[in-house]
Amino acid sequence: MSSIFGTLFRISSWGESHGKGIGVVIDGCPPLVPLTESDIQEALDRRRPGQSSITTPRSEKDGVQILSGVFEGKTTGTPISLAVFNEDQRSSDYTEMREKFRPSHADFTYQEKYGIRDYAGGGRSSARETIARVAAGAVAEKILKMSRGIEVRAFVRSIHEIDAPEGLDFPAREAVESTPVRCPHSETAERMIARIKEVRDQGDSVGGVIECRVKGLPTGWGSPVFDRLEADLAKAMLSLPATKGFEVGSGFEGTRMTGSDHNDPFEMRGGVVSTTTNRSGGVQGGISNGEELVFRIAFKPTATVRKNQKTVSRSGENTELAAKGRHDPCVVPRAVPIVEAMTALVLIDHGMRHHAQTAAFAIPQE
Amino acid sequence: MSSIFGTLFRISSWGESHGKGIGVVIDGCPPLVPLTESDIQEALDRRRPGQSSITTPRSEKDGVQILSGVFEGKTTGTPISLAVFNEDQRSSDYTEMREKFRPSHADFTYQEKYGIRDYAGGGRSSARETIARVAAGAVAEKILKMSRGIEVRAFVRSIHEIDAPEGLDFPAREAVESTPVRCPHSETAERMIARIKEVRDQGDSVGGVIECRVKGLPTGWGSPVFDRLEADLAKAMLSLPATKGFEVGSGFEGTRMTGSDHNDPFEMRGGVVSTTTNRSGGVQGGISNGEELVFRIAFKPTATVRKNQKTVSRSGENTELAAKGRHDPCVVPRAVPIVEAMTALVLIDHGMRHHAQTAAFAIPQE
Amino acid sequence: MSSIFGTLFRISSWGESHGKGIGVVIDGCPPLVPLTESDIQEALDRRRPGQSSITTPRSEKDGVQILSGVFEGKTTGTPISLAVFNEDQRSSDYTEMREKFRPSHADFTYQEKYGIRDYAGGGRSSARETIARVAAGAVAEKILKMSRGIEVRAFVRSIHEIDAPEGLDFPAREAVESTPVRCPHSETAERMIARIKEVRDQGDSVGGVIECRVKGLPTGWGSPVFDRLEADLAKAMLSLPATKGFEVGSGFEGTRMTGSDHNDPFEMRGGVVSTTTNRSGGVQGGISNGEELVFRIAFKPTATVRKNQKTVSRSGENTELAAKGRHDPCVVPRAVPIVEAMTALVLIDHGMRHHAQTAAFAIPQE
Amino acid sequence: MSSIFGTLFRISSWGESHGKGIGVVIDGCPPLVPLTESDIQEALDRRRPGQSSITTPRSEKDGVQILSGVFEGKTTGTPISLAVFNEDQRSSDYTEMREKFRPSHADFTYQEKYGIRDYAGGGRSSARETIARVAAGAVAEKILKMSRGIEVRAFVRSIHEIDAPEGLDFPAREAVESTPVRCPHSETAERMIARIKEVRDQGDSVGGVIECRVKGLPTGWGSPVFDRLEADLAKAMLSLPATKGFEVGSGFEGTRMTGSDHNDPFEMRGGVVSTTTNRSGGVQGGISNGEELVFRIAFKPTATVRKNQKTVSRSGENTELAAKGRHDPCVVPRAVPIVEAMTALVLIDHGMRHHAQTAAFAIPQE
Repeated sequence: MSSIFGTLFRISSWGESHGKGIGVVIDGCPPLVPLTESDIQEALDRRRPGQSSITTPRSEKDGVQILSGVFEGKTTGTPISLAVFNEDQRSSDYTEMREKFRPSHADFTYQEKYGIRDYAGGGRSSARETIARVAAGAVAEKILKMSRGIEVRAFVRSIHEIDAPEGLDFPAREAVESTPVRCPHSETAERMIARIKEVRDQGDSVGGVIECRVKGLPTGWGSPVFDRLEADLAKAMLSLPATKGFEVGSGFEGTRMTGSDHNDPFEMRGGVVSTTTNRSGGVQGGISNGEELVFRIAFKPTATVRKNQKTVSRSGENTELAAKGRHDPCVVPRAVPIVEAMTALVLIDHGMRHHAQTAAFAIPQE
Repeated sequence: MSSIFGTLFRISSWGESHGKGIGVVIDGCPPLVPLTESDIQEALDRRRPGQSSITTPRSEKDGVQILSGVFEGKTTGTPISLAVFNEDQRSSDYTEMREKFRPSHADFTYQEKYGIRDYAGGGRSSARETIARVAAGAVAEKILKMSRGIEVRAFVRSIHEIDAPEGLDFPAREAVESTPVRCPHSETAERMIARIKEVRDQGDSVGGVIECRVKGLPTGWGSPVFDRLEADLAKAMLSLPATKGFEVGSGFEGTRMTGSDHNDPFEMRGGVVSTTTNRSGGVQGGISNGEELVFRIAFKPTATVRKNQKTVSRSGENTELAAKGRHDPCVVPRAVPIVEAMTALVLIDHGMRHHAQTAAFAIPQE
Repeated sequence: MSSIFGTLFRISSWGESHGKGIGVVIDGCPPLVPLTESDIQEALDRRRPGQSSITTPRSEKDGVQILSGVFEGKTTGTPISLAVFNEDQRSSDYTEMREKFRPSHADFTYQEKYGIRDYAGGGRSSARETIARVAAGAVAEKILKMSRGIEVRAFVRSIHEIDAPEGLDFPAREAVESTPVRCPHSETAERMIARIKEVRDQGDSVGGVIECRVKGLPTGWGSPVFDRLEADLAKAMLSLPATKGFEVGSGFEGTRMTGSDHNDPFEMRGGVVSTTTNRSGGVQGGISNGEELVFRIAFKPTATVRKNQKTVSRSGENTELAAKGRHDPCVVPRAVPIVEAMTALVLIDHGMRHHAQTAAFAIPQE
Repeated sequence: MSSIFGTLFRISSWGESHGKGIGVVIDGCPPLVPLTESDIQEALDRRRPGQSSITTPRSEKDGVQILSGVFEGKTTGTPISLAVFNEDQRSSDYTEMREKFRPSHADFTYQEKYGIRDYAGGGRSSARETIARVAAGAVAEKILKMSRGIEVRAFVRSIHEIDAPEGLDFPAREAVESTPVRCPHSETAERMIARIKEVRDQGDSVGGVIECRVKGLPTGWGSPVFDRLEADLAKAMLSLPATKGFEVGSGFEGTRMTGSDHNDPFEMRGGVVSTTTNRSGGVQGGISNGEELVFRIAFKPTATVRKNQKTVSRSGENTELAAKGRHDPCVVPRAVPIVEAMTALVLIDHGMRHHAQTAAFAIPQE
């Protein structure tokens, strides 16, 4: 079940980096949603490389096609098949990638698990696979917004040792998109960009932290025990390439507070039960409490660097390896739309599950 | 599906804090595993309160019963039903809990989601539910160890602002159990205990971080894309009460390194492909690489404190609340066996899935 | 996943014939459903043996207990654990069952699959396991009726070579229950009873066919392609012990008609799209069409007979076996409430899934 | 989940009759299986129309493409995406299909469920969707055969009122394919062909029964309780368009026997526990017993007939409808490879599940 995600709004992802294409099938999408290829293309364009001076200069068009599930401009409730076909399957020289395991990549583990691996451009383990997630997530995001006014917003919180200041709240998408590093705090963004260029010139790479916020989430989504909203978000985020951590609300810092300081007091605000602080991050007991959902994801520095590294060959000999060509010195900015996509996928699924359990069978109450 | 966990080794949890009991049904357990109630009781005894001066003084026997699935001392491959019946369903006064939402608890969200909640002792949202996890995890842990020699070891890394020093490696269980705070570094443990007593006397609480390590894990477990080993671990950990974060390997700190420093170089060691460092935490591309699995979980300070807190009532009026009776000032030490249990459940499931895909149908290779 | 059934309204069954008890955990039940033990007991009483002269004279009380998920008389949306504990775990002599495989039972296949089996009274393969299904089904049936007015009615259509006449429509439950054979056509019922007594006196057994009808089903339940309503019903029915076939609407007989005779013409009736015949059995394209749901299930003659039979021993020697004690010469009448239970479980799950996809996210239409 | 099938070997189907194409994504396929497009094309060619004088004369090429999951001629263990693109999306006049509900088709129920339907050629409800099943099934069938020597063989048992004689055992594929009606009894086949031509000339249609047998199945596949092998086969078969019934072994006829006649006595044969008869159809207690698996599926007469039929329009008016063009007067022969495909999909999934539970974790036995 490794390439299928979700319970009711299910996506099935396929494709390799240098194969015929990347695609996704959405099963369980609500009917009657207006949907065009440009709805999805817009999200894909935010994900693809070559967008700015700080990302990889490869320019890929990544044009999406809707192959099924939409009729006369609307979803029909049947599977939506989306595909991005590779325009040119580059005939690079992969001899070195075939023979040597790239450090901190998936080359060795795929080989061990399956006894075979598609080594061309990383095959299935390439971050190009996230095209499928972004495409499906764009559909989910549109439904959340059209039907419920729910908005998902991710942005870069830190790059390497450069942190954006606290208190960015829920930034406008324009603010996020205004710099190539996708940090809405412009002064910090400039320093981040400088740092990325610096490590790039050294043939090195850096990582960072993305924060994601959700506005307009109703109370009651998520479930007790195993399928807590934050548990499914954690799984979704840790399923992304290069992620090493997830935290919700106060996160790891919260462990250094006392309970009386950490608790979120309730108060009535405009006739609604609200909290005066939001260290819970919008979930209590695994269920949304009506406050903003807030979580962060740690992305390690890109594993591909031009510096020389020690490794071993497939035949078990110690050797060395240095990446050729140009590579992304920092994938974090490009991961912003991917984080939003996975968030939307988790939310729509939980929304459907919540309604199935609590609204499908109303019981007359005395 | 909120109370069912796993794909092949599936557990179904039930029960409320002050109801008739807590239990779990394991579906898909391998047959022919020697299993007695004392195998499970041992794990439960590590979880239960009243073990030491720093935990809640309530003494609960929590005696487990095997209700099905074991015949003449061995598992039969059919569902194993385990139950811990409550000996006395205490007739406490729950009037206040019925009327007021405890801050940073699940009272409000359960009420919003379902329109009803079992408020006695927290009902389903009580940490007493983790009895089910520990009982099922004990079975998984026994199988991992007997069949594969895999060992799971969790311990307390930090309490409040007190951190254990780096480099604890894989501590012996005896070292972990030697102090009530379950930190194997004895000097640190003493300071942690002092801090817990201090906040307890102030009617307050603290949180902390648990680290979990797994030794003996084969290469190849875990899957590409959505069901990465660390993704399923993240979900498992964030499904635990009071958790706010998860990180694997270098985690959030790793985002502050450069790629060339962060990557784990491969080398041949004793004829085996190994890494010289382990910032990956034992997984690459979602699949185990043969190194020790290492991850950490953030637990917030206990929400129940004796200090007075602002909150609202069910009828929507601002009010105040202070917990009565004695409560755990720090749940982190008791969460150690729970973390181990969830880890074992994730691992056995992935082990079964790995073998299903790669070993059930061997294809003759030319 | 063999003992878990359902997608959203999920049940997890456990227990063996002569073990400590039989039980079931329901995950995903809607909240606020009034539920008492007697709601469930009523269904169990219809299932249990010893009800009449034609069933096994063993009298089992099978008293059900609600162990969780109900608070102050209503479901809370959390798991409902139901258990029937065995009052006396009889100390019969099972030496012969341990050593010899009963023909057309599951003794041999369980032994082959697992290398171990609970041979006491058939263990997990005993029809006593259906207690779990009936208990869970009673909850589903109550919800379907209270919330939507949906009624499920099964009855005996044939026993051995004795068929009830066509045209019984939707019989009243009283009519079904008026004879121990649960055939609402009283004259046929008498002949069936006579036949059952006859084979019983010969130490033999007979099978038969149950028909099940559902009234009040809305249009739109069920899904295209794999999760057709009739596909999930077929699975549910073939999962019952002793079943050998399933047919919906015209069934196997329908294969002997021409298309022009077989098709169900549509017509407007009382302003509603209706069909003039119902050879479709209430489903078209896997989705309910608003007509009565009609399907039938074939039950083989009970495998346990007092007549002497050839078989082999566990050690691989040819031998003979004759059942001792008194056994049900015909399980078909007792299977009626079990068929109803499984039907209710399939329907509530599909109702929840339908609602999740089509109602949770309404999209404003121009 | 309506378009996803399977637990470990999972397929995700997409596409509409007159859309851009039909496809399927296989998740969980074992690695290192040699696989080419022609392996799959062969099965698709058996399914497609235009093969003979008795099927629809439309000639569709249905050329399959492997879009992912195969590298240097072998499966890699990652998702296999298969697609058949429509060569010409015919610009037929669908005005009548848009306005009128075809009797005993899915037009009305799709419209009711989703509020929208792709009416072009039946859209998602078209039998053309089975291309996805046959393509995925071909992969499963190849693995079953290469790895375990398991063979799946379906054939036509009856057409309308014409039955093949009993005792056809396990026919050679050549015998099945030797006539366009896919009945291996040549004399019966001729009569079937004549009947089909006769009804075709009357603008009418007929149905029939397919029998499927599996040779070489190991003991132990399938599970107790809900996921019995025959239960999952029943679901798979009833998920096919136009099916109305399923029976295994003695089936409905078996209900007319006594237990002592119906039971399959065990005997030792060549050192192996065997049965002297096979009324069980190869499964006992839901688990394969080493005998041939035998089951039958009822297909109703094709709903599309040229004769005039009563129906209603989308706007709720009584009207009439007669199919134009040429249509398959009998789909049963073309359903033979589809039945084989679904059977292979169920078997490989159960094989993987069996292995996961019983072989992944061997426990040292004293």
